[in-house]
Amino acid sequence: MEIIRIVPEMQRRAEELRLQGRRIGFVPTMGFLHEGHLSLLDLVRRHSDISVMSIFVNPTQFGPNEDYEKYPRDFERDERLARERGCDILFYPSVAEMYPEPYRTYVNVEEITEVLCGASRPGHFRGVATVVTKLFNIVKPHVAAFGQKDAQQAIVIKQMVRDLNMDLEILVGPIVREPDGLAMSSRNKYLSGQERKDALVLYRSLQRAQELIAAGERHAARIKAEMEAIIRSVSTSRIDYIEIADTVNLRPLDRLKGEVLIALAVWIGATRLIDNVMVRV
Amino acid sequence: MEIIRIVPEMQRRAEELRLQGRRIGFVPTMGFLHEGHLSLLDLVRRHSDISVMSIFVNPTQFGPNEDYEKYPRDFERDERLARERGCDILFYPSVAEMYPEPYRTYVNVEEITEVLCGASRPGHFRGVATVVTKLFNIVKPHVAAFGQKDAQQAIVIKQMVRDLNMDLEILVGPIVREPDGLAMSSRNKYLSGQERKDALVLYRSLQRAQELIAAGERHAARIKAEMEAIIRSVSTSRIDYIEIADTVNLRPLDRLKGEVLIALAVWIGATRLIDNVMVRV
Repeated sequence: MEIIRIVPEMQRRAEELRLQGRRIGFVPTMGFLHEGHLSLLDLVRRHSDISVMSIFVNPTQFGPNEDYEKYPRDFERDERLARERGCDILFYPSVAEMYPEPYRTYVNVEEITEVLCGASRPGHFRGVATVVTKLFNIVKPHVAAFGQKDAQQAIVIKQMVRDLNMDLEILVGPIVREPDGLAMSSRNKYLSGQERKDALVLYRSLQRAQELIAAGERHAARIKAEMEAIIRSVSTSRIDYIEIADTVNLRPLDRLKGEVLIALAVWIGATRLIDNVMVRV
Repeated sequence: MEIIRIVPEMQRRAEELRLQGRRIGFVPTMGFLHEGHLSLLDLVRRHSDISVMSIFVNPTQFGPNEDYEKYPRDFERDERLARERGCDILFYPSVAEMYPEPYRTYVNVEEITEVLCGASRPGHFRGVATVVTKLFNIVKPHVAAFGQKDAQQAIVIKQMVRDLNMDLEILVGPIVREPDGLAMSSRNKYLSGQERKDALVLYRSLQRAQELIAAGERHAARIKAEMEAIIRSVSTSRIDYIEIADTVNLRPLDRLKGEVLIALAVWIGATRLIDNVMVRV
């Protein structure tokens, strides 16, 4: 596995690979890798000849009171995991390399970034869209993979790729869960023993929503009320949002129809967790 | 000369050329070509194997009360001029092809777009940065050329290319003037006979500024006052701005030092014209 830390070096390597007719598959990450990230590496490897993973904790997607500083980092472990999983190139730039001063350009996807996570994290998706644009211009992939765990992020990236005519394919890999159902996340590391148990209410509430839908329930308000009750059953929880939305424009739905996204963000103690399911009604 | 009107077709053609190891040179325009545009075609042809010119009157860079509808268009003439000048591929997309609904993504360069033309045309440079990003992703050039007539645009594009790690080179071609000094512009077509004569005050004021600097003047206020007097000497004129600014961050200067941009925007009747000179003091 090659490790590249410099932007023009990664660009030269990518250009060279493209000229050789090789298909580049890309997994952008913030590191502290778990099985969710590694499953995306498997996914792009099935669609490409050369796999590139980036590890970059992107400062522009964190709000001023968020966890940028304490976000977990362990490059040695990440390097080993990526190598063992068959990653060909690891791109690991510094913040100074990615945002040389004076930095002034941002990519903004309107409307669909103002709801759900975007409503509670203003500027978050602007930072995501900007860094992903930069990474695409650096790594020059034919195909890139994102996780369904960040459902809104995947939808925002797809809209951006379409709008800005980025000539690549976006794949979305399924959520990878712990044996007890908790969606894998680098932030799970923040949870205490009790919080780790309480965090199961996210997935339990999504399972309950699916049961209700299977039984014929189509009123979003009734489903959301039952989800809310499950989450409130643990004292460490605080709901950021529970929403049932259209999967393309992310607008909230009153009645379920077609493909819908059931998504939630919940604080467990001091840790904000997200989870979701897509359901075809 | 090939004419391509469809985005994925242009992308396929560009990818094919790149895979053949050919260097793509690109001149984005809004058409109604004049010698300024054609000189940029000469410029990119000296730096590439295949030249692509785009003709697209971009709606997102016009304000609601600006001249998008009446902007001059003459595709047959443009096609002939581009062909005669050695253009290899003319990319001529429709608005529906470039902005399919629902369109939501914009590229914004901050700070340097809020002064000079950006101050009087809010949203203009957001439209420019967005369409240029799209065109770069469609045409995939190794080198692209912009005119010095739109000095702020060239600076904004260079900042965007650097910030978003677009892997291409930006060339800036000199202003091409009519024999009497008026900078060439598609909008000169709007001028009546008298306005066409009055429009010479833009260049005359810039020449006067250069004389003053050559004579040792370093106070921006004194230079701008003389420029203003020249422009006010014709009754059809109305000054939008006269500014002397740093060539990198576009901040106004009180005292001239190093490389400076002397730029102005002036209404002559109902037509807004711009012109500038760069001076090393």
